[in-house]
Amino acid sequence: MASSKIAVIAGVGTGGGTGGAVARRFASEGYKVALLSRNGQALQGLSDSIKATGGLAVPFPLSVYSYSEVSNAFNSIKKEWPGDSIRVTVWNAGDGIFSPFGDITEEQLHKTVDGNVFGPFAFARESITSFKEQELDDRGSRGTLIFTGAKASLYGGVTTSAFASGKFALRALSQSLAKEFGKQNIHVSHAIVDGFIATDRKHGKDANPDSFVHPEAIAEAYEFLTKQHRSAWTWELDLRPAHEKW
Amino acid sequence: MASSKIAVIAGVGTGGGTGGAVARRFASEGYKVALLSRNGQALQGLSDSIKATGGLAVPFPLSVYSYSEVSNAFNSIKKEWPGDSIRVTVWNAGDGIFSPFGDITEEQLHKTVDGNVFGPFAFARESITSFKEQELDDRGSRGTLIFTGAKASLYGGVTTSAFASGKFALRALSQSLAKEFGKQNIHVSHAIVDGFIATDRKHGKDANPDSFVHPEAIAEAYEFLTKQHRSAWTWELDLRPAHEKW
Amino acid sequence: MASSKIAVIAGVGTGGGTGGAVARRFASEGYKVALLSRNGQALQGLSDSIKATGGLAVPFPLSVYSYSEVSNAFNSIKKEWPGDSIRVTVWNAGDGIFSPFGDITEEQLHKTVDGNVFGPFAFARESITSFKEQELDDRGSRGTLIFTGAKASLYGGVTTSAFASGKFALRALSQSLAKEFGKQNIHVSHAIVDGFIATDRKHGKDANPDSFVHPEAIAEAYEFLTKQHRSAWTWELDLRPAHEKW
Amino acid sequence: MASSKIAVIAGVGTGGGTGGAVARRFASEGYKVALLSRNGQALQGLSDSIKATGGLAVPFPLSVYSYSEVSNAFNSIKKEWPGDSIRVTVWNAGDGIFSPFGDITEEQLHKTVDGNVFGPFAFARESITSFKEQELDDRGSRGTLIFTGAKASLYGGVTTSAFASGKFALRALSQSLAKEFGKQNIHVSHAIVDGFIATDRKHGKDANPDSFVHPEAIAEAYEFLTKQHRSAWTWELDLRPAHEKW
Repeated sequence: MASSKIAVIAGVGTGGGTGGAVARRFASEGYKVALLSRNGQALQGLSDSIKATGGLAVPFPLSVYSYSEVSNAFNSIKKEWPGDSIRVTVWNAGDGIFSPFGDITEEQLHKTVDGNVFGPFAFARESITSFKEQELDDRGSRGTLIFTGAKASLYGGVTTSAFASGKFALRALSQSLAKEFGKQNIHVSHAIVDGFIATDRKHGKDANPDSFVHPEAIAEAYEFLTKQHRSAWTWELDLRPAHEKW
Repeated sequence: MASSKIAVIAGVGTGGGTGGAVARRFASEGYKVALLSRNGQALQGLSDSIKATGGLAVPFPLSVYSYSEVSNAFNSIKKEWPGDSIRVTVWNAGDGIFSPFGDITEEQLHKTVDGNVFGPFAFARESITSFKEQELDDRGSRGTLIFTGAKASLYGGVTTSAFASGKFALRALSQSLAKEFGKQNIHVSHAIVDGFIATDRKHGKDANPDSFVHPEAIAEAYEFLTKQHRSAWTWELDLRPAHEKW
Repeated sequence: MASSKIAVIAGVGTGGGTGGAVARRFASEGYKVALLSRNGQALQGLSDSIKATGGLAVPFPLSVYSYSEVSNAFNSIKKEWPGDSIRVTVWNAGDGIFSPFGDITEEQLHKTVDGNVFGPFAFARESITSFKEQELDDRGSRGTLIFTGAKASLYGGVTTSAFASGKFALRALSQSLAKEFGKQNIHVSHAIVDGFIATDRKHGKDANPDSFVHPEAIAEAYEFLTKQHRSAWTWELDLRPAHEKW
Repeated sequence: MASSKIAVIAGVGTGGGTGGAVARRFASEGYKVALLSRNGQALQGLSDSIKATGGLAVPFPLSVYSYSEVSNAFNSIKKEWPGDSIRVTVWNAGDGIFSPFGDITEEQLHKTVDGNVFGPFAFARESITSFKEQELDDRGSRGTLIFTGAKASLYGGVTTSAFASGKFALRALSQSLAKEFGKQNIHVSHAIVDGFIATDRKHGKDANPDSFVHPEAIAEAYEFLTKQHRSAWTWELDLRPAHEKW
């Protein structure tokens, strides 16, 4: 039996945002999808909904994005689907923190660092280790690792001393890895999602729909990144509603 | 009879590089393709080869990328295909100039400014004027204008005082237009092509093919830009061979 | 008799802004100051006021910042002060243009290109040619060339398609020159002045004075750049009022 | 008796690099200097040498740049010099880590995060809290907080996945604070020191001295930052040897 492709998506939240849309997209493209999140209950709902549409998804809940928990999740994934190939991994974790500098707590700072430094380092290490074992696909790639960034990846602001610190760090990691592992035919990308995500929570019926990012449109871009030929790989792209002021 | 889509590609050179590949790509997607270049003879060869594969392309040669010549070309295009819709325009002109500062001639400087300021301003004005007359397509867009950049769009270097001046200027134009016209549902993008293009001239049989950008891979990215949903438009992305040192 | 130092300041406008303050500053530091401007009448007033405070300044009016006129100005300067050393040159020309894309005229575009490409290229060529003939000063430098940038040097905006194109181009030139000529001990800098300049025109008695840049404070920074030891040269710095929103 | 000015310098290492030079500089300008370092023994030597030249310096050794230790150090400083004014604080800590991604240890990652996130957040909080209590000085400032950056503040590279993550984070913090506290007349700066520092260790007699940054030249720039008028404050500047390739 032929080997299947696996996509690992970290940070699927409640399933209504970017992580969920990305998971559904890769499931519909025939990937077995591993869902990582600190929110176990939401994970189950998302994996059920993916299965209901003919996809294959399994939740791998974590309590925290520590090195050991992330490593354990990858071990569990390999045990769940032995012989299959991890080809796509997406780091979408790391909550937005918008707060004046004086109000930022040590706990928030630890969360920022977990979501944007420790977690992604472990996630990247596991991803790259897995990719190195893969054959080249028909586009010349061993695998694609995508990080989700934000406007705060590019600019510090009056309420983002903590959030931008994390997002700048994540961007640095992604660029360093893209440079280090490109020559091993491993593709590392960084998507700057600049705008509010349209979820059921925020996307009220009165709001101008053009000022929100649709998660499905982000997922399309992520899929495109995995399909680029290795002679023209994108490290970084921005994704922004047409009506966004920037 | 239904209206057809038109793609206008400026800077197709000899047809073996980015401009040619982009033209072939949009032709194969059903666009009528208008080819702008200062190299009339090569234009004819490219349009013939596109027709040979069932596409539709017409050359519109210019002697220089001046405001009036670019405007005239758009008038000719509209006369050639009345009732059709200009939906995609690509500015791919502007030769690379790599020279110590002391050796740069005034002629080179004028060429840089024509290819990266005067030409693109006229091209953008005609493109946006045309787009404004269009209905929204099924992705919420009136049209897509793509500029081709280079590594020199981001960094000045010891031999790029002229070239980087031009490419920085072009990037500024593209960003300004993206911000100004996004809310009118017009999509402006800037692609940083960082690497040597694989053409017959440069791509010798001894060279590592992974260190060249394939024009077809660039064309795929450009097509992707035209298909993005307007809730997640990309202004800028880089395109670089996996093995490129950067 | 010992050789004197010459400072060449281009773009002194009416003398009430950055160029004028920089000229007064270097005059007070013992430089002979050459004033370049397209506004001959204001030049005379500024040079008179500098002489009134014991400084030495001579106006060199131009009709346009073309290559030949800029070159001629340097020839006139050398004829005026034979045997003296051009040590500091400041390019402060290039008017701000804030206009929707559709309203930008070809004349404005030509002005932008003159002030940010052709003029600065000629100015830089003359500066660097002069510097190369100089001995090292006690800080290890042959000379300092400073370009004045703006917020539009970093960001395109909805009304800056022309202005940002020019300012991006100027920044590229400055970075390229800094990289190319640093090893010849020539110092090239780029100052991003981000904020309105406090001049008599703009600085009404009701305005918050903290939201304006004082020209004298810019001049202090420019003087600092000329005094840096060559082991720690600054290519780029920003200068911004404490109360500026950015 | 009039109140004295205090400068707090964190990260003075062995005293032969940037931190030491900055400490000596502010001591010679009449500041009481508080030296923070994890290297207690070197601290004593530096403070002795400052005292020997008529300055006033006191070591405040830390075991780690944690929030509580940094806070305690500021408390000790205030107890040491009651009634004096903390006017300048410099964060110069955070060791360079140059290593392939696969070799980076969790311990290195923790060190990076301590030196570039947790430590600087605590240091900035204490600095800003102190500055807020100060009167405006004759330049319109309540105090200056300077962060030392590196080339890795701007670019990720093949051996800098950890180091650049830290330095990007520090830059984000500095920019966020500059924007948030400028309107309270608190000056936050970020200096990108791009080049090897000339210390006794690295600066062998065979090396080209022009390819090293002299710590004294950095210290001059830092002093300049503290003297800028608040109408033209610099957030970021680069400091680079004339002969550096970049």
